[in-house]
Amino acid sequence: MTGRMERQFRFALEADKEKRIGRQTYISNGEEKENDAEHAWHAALMAILLAEYANEPIDVLRTVTMLLIHDMVEIDAGDTYAYDEAAKQTQREREEKAADRIFGMLPGDQRDELRALWEEFEAAQTPEAKFARTMDNIQPAMLNCATGGRAWREKGVKLSQIINRNKITPEGSKELWEYSLNNFIMPNVEKGNIIDK
Amino acid sequence: MTGRMERQFRFALEADKEKRIGRQTYISNGEEKENDAEHAWHAALMAILLAEYANEPIDVLRTVTMLLIHDMVEIDAGDTYAYDEAAKQTQREREEKAADRIFGMLPGDQRDELRALWEEFEAAQTPEAKFARTMDNIQPAMLNCATGGRAWREKGVKLSQIINRNKITPEGSKELWEYSLNNFIMPNVEKGNIIDK
Repeated sequence: MTGRMERQFRFALEADKEKRIGRQTYISNGEEKENDAEHAWHAALMAILLAEYANEPIDVLRTVTMLLIHDMVEIDAGDTYAYDEAAKQTQREREEKAADRIFGMLPGDQRDELRALWEEFEAAQTPEAKFARTMDNIQPAMLNCATGGRAWREKGVKLSQIINRNKITPEGSKELWEYSLNNFIMPNVEKGNIIDK
Repeated sequence: MTGRMERQFRFALEADKEKRIGRQTYISNGEEKENDAEHAWHAALMAILLAEYANEPIDVLRTVTMLLIHDMVEIDAGDTYAYDEAAKQTQREREEKAADRIFGMLPGDQRDELRALWEEFEAAQTPEAKFARTMDNIQPAMLNCATGGRAWREKGVKLSQIINRNKITPEGSKELWEYSLNNFIMPNVEKGNIIDK
């Protein structure tokens, strides 16, 4: 039998693999792309800074915990790029299987708790999950804008795709979505970094 | 006058620079070293997983927030390696100046709140700060052990240095310190990866 603390440390060590899962977002130096661990840290920090703009009152610790773990399934399932429609077909199945294995490393109570938080994030129905999804979408928009729209330009992203992906962003915070739209997204449509259709 | 939300986003963007501040700890693949953002994410996640072992009850959100921001001063002051005695002479002064500038980017209330949390972490007197320091020390010990003691070996680290650095680690959690000593540190003394003096 494996002790409780040992299981917790094995999970903590497994989590380390997120540091090697690349994303499509350039960090602010405009040269390197971020990884899942960096993104989770950044989004969690932003949740703490920006919680005051949530449409509904949120439990900040629940929101932050969700953000810290929301991409752990990508250790097995890989990062599915927001606008890769083929990969998105199989995403749910790959991620469920990953969640079984990865959260299953924990003692039962924590396995159930973190798994439930991940499902809550995915379902995006609670105030905390909605706000976490807002952070998950606004953090890369901020960086894409700060790096001259490079990631959008390189992938040939259309405004309609961004609007579609951000359908739920205002559900977490109308104010932050409006800020993101006006300050991060639309100026890059004007500059031609985002395709206007 | 700069609006509140704009200041918050400027700070969030500034924070991004932590992703390029290297540390001396190898990540679990044993090849690359982690950066401050990855370390902060990992330590915050571990605080959530391991809070039950704190010597005294802790406010987990306060602890997590401390960990998410504890290295922000290194954006200006750089990472001071734990066993670089020369750099440690000037560390406090460099970091105070950095805290003035970086937390000063925020609206006044958040500037004061995060600055106070950083000072609290540095002073290591409250239950939350003590536990955060325990995480800050145990996370790299776990990784150094998982990577065959490479970072300790390359730097010629002595057991006495590790014991000295970890003087306050048991103040956050006796149980976690004992686990770290018995499972991460001592086996690497036996293998010769840590110098036994």
